[in-house]
Amino acid sequence: MNTLNWQDDHLTILDQTLLPHKVEYVKQTNIEQMRETIYQLKVRGAPAIGVAAAYGCLTGLKALTHLPLTEFKEIFTKQAEILRAARPTAVNLMRSIDLMVQRMQSSQATSSSALYDDLVAEATRIHQEDIDLCQRIGDAGAALIKDGTSILTHCNAGALATTGLGTALAPLYVAHNNGLKFKVYADETRPLLQGARLTAFELRNAGIDVTLLCDNMAADLMSRGGVDLVIVGCDRVAANGDTANKIGTLGVAILASYFKIPFYVACPSSTIDFSAPTADYIAIEMRDPDEVRSFNGTFSAEREVQAYNPAFDVTPAALITGFITEKGIITAPYSQNLRTNFYHGH
Amino acid sequence: MNTLNWQDDHLTILDQTLLPHKVEYVKQTNIEQMRETIYQLKVRGAPAIGVAAAYGCLTGLKALTHLPLTEFKEIFTKQAEILRAARPTAVNLMRSIDLMVQRMQSSQATSSSALYDDLVAEATRIHQEDIDLCQRIGDAGAALIKDGTSILTHCNAGALATTGLGTALAPLYVAHNNGLKFKVYADETRPLLQGARLTAFELRNAGIDVTLLCDNMAADLMSRGGVDLVIVGCDRVAANGDTANKIGTLGVAILASYFKIPFYVACPSSTIDFSAPTADYIAIEMRDPDEVRSFNGTFSAEREVQAYNPAFDVTPAALITGFITEKGIITAPYSQNLRTNFYHGH
Repeated sequence: MNTLNWQDDHLTILDQTLLPHKVEYVKQTNIEQMRETIYQLKVRGAPAIGVAAAYGCLTGLKALTHLPLTEFKEIFTKQAEILRAARPTAVNLMRSIDLMVQRMQSSQATSSSALYDDLVAEATRIHQEDIDLCQRIGDAGAALIKDGTSILTHCNAGALATTGLGTALAPLYVAHNNGLKFKVYADETRPLLQGARLTAFELRNAGIDVTLLCDNMAADLMSRGGVDLVIVGCDRVAANGDTANKIGTLGVAILASYFKIPFYVACPSSTIDFSAPTADYIAIEMRDPDEVRSFNGTFSAEREVQAYNPAFDVTPAALITGFITEKGIITAPYSQNLRTNFYHGH
Repeated sequence: MNTLNWQDDHLTILDQTLLPHKVEYVKQTNIEQMRETIYQLKVRGAPAIGVAAAYGCLTGLKALTHLPLTEFKEIFTKQAEILRAARPTAVNLMRSIDLMVQRMQSSQATSSSALYDDLVAEATRIHQEDIDLCQRIGDAGAALIKDGTSILTHCNAGALATTGLGTALAPLYVAHNNGLKFKVYADETRPLLQGARLTAFELRNAGIDVTLLCDNMAADLMSRGGVDLVIVGCDRVAANGDTANKIGTLGVAILASYFKIPFYVACPSSTIDFSAPTADYIAIEMRDPDEVRSFNGTFSAEREVQAYNPAFDVTPAALITGFITEKGIITAPYSQNLRTNFYHGH
């Protein structure tokens, strides 16, 4: 199931707010609709947003290639800036828009039509880059999976968050495509239930044996020998390997350590933040307490009760067995090995 | 807030299925209604069900004290058997019904009216016994709480589960009544959200500083130094101290151990099952997967996805700092100390 499709002159996007109950692709016909699609999280996951933005800033432009080049460039630039503002803190979105604008600036095209073709080519390249990255992470992680392996994951770092195989779920897709039979357990991932709504949905849709559980059931499952391997995604990794990821990841890591179960983080190298020496330098977003007081739109608690709602937690590097990256699996010592493989700065 | 009240000739019961959004006491006017009240979990928590059943089998009987003694006894016995069948595996319910029937059999009363008074006295005694038990557990556990202590609890072993101060929450009520200022964190406790619906509600209602969190947020909270002490209840304790309690308890115990936070189980001695040498002898109920796929009728996942739903998990004795009982706090070695204090068999 594709997150999005570019077809001739327009983008169609899977509306993820309707999942898992309805699979609906929406054709993007103008830039304002495209902005809303990103803003309303109809497309979500940093890599998928990046690709959607690259194609998205071309929305409606094929019909305008009869315009003079200068005018065409102005309209394109304006569209790009509209999308850039859709989610102001999304790094992949910024990067995609920057790449698209740079391509416009460096293009040798002398007609609007030729420039349009250049821009489509750049968006397609960004798209293919995401697909390749997922595939490489998948290939590296698939080596951890054997027939009969039982894998626990948390939140959704799956195909639905990218335009490829996902990150944490990529090894599962590769292993599945290689014909292996294994079992996946998906934490539902309160408060926003990405595990129930997205991970269980996309794995089942792909024909992979998946079982949903509440977050607080993972310890019991592990105590019965039900988990051989944990793979999660990451939002940001510090230079020493400390990892910020969806709230609940730290708990899973501690349980895995207690039960001596390998705990891997699927990590595109773009997620590593060498400017943060340790997790102490990573700020954790606190979100609306109503997300905790309610479940899927229904208030379970009184609206007046205090609630704690950090969006992410930090798993110390010492609890991580390895990082599954596009350059293979990186193990400790992380300060050294992450830098050697991925640091491009000074 | 009382779970139930006996008033002159009838019982009123707080309908807990309406919490936390509505506080409504329902007068019990006939035995069929009383049976439904227990069956539909309007009253829940083993101790509360026990007291409700004791009073409950007297429902409507005061109006029948003009009947001949033999006929009155027949009606009472029939009512008692109706309630006994309301939840066939509830031990406290059985025990209460047994005590009420024994009182009828041993009563010297020569009139229906006198027998009725004897039976009301027995129900009142059972009620007072529950209140006293909670108070003693509360007194023992309150010694663990100081000004500024931050306490995490899981599920609801509170006043709403008993007719007194609760078990796990009793120490909090005693400390609060003693004027201490402390902070409580309540795990929401998926899938049925007893923490959100009941624990946060009853503590807030009592004026205690309580904050709700999703189960998967406890690790993060502990990592920030936010928890000084964990107190949970228990459903069944094996002779060696292994403890079955609401799903999620094991995970909290492992986290507490990792962060070196004391982990206590509030445990009326009636919960200790000396016939089970270890937790391997305790069967764990598996419940309807729809509870995991949904909450309150709204499905977060596809109805067709597999789901794992154990009602309880087992915390090994080694992770338990102590049991808070009506005879004080019991520490390891548990096989020896539980038996010395509480074993009445052969």
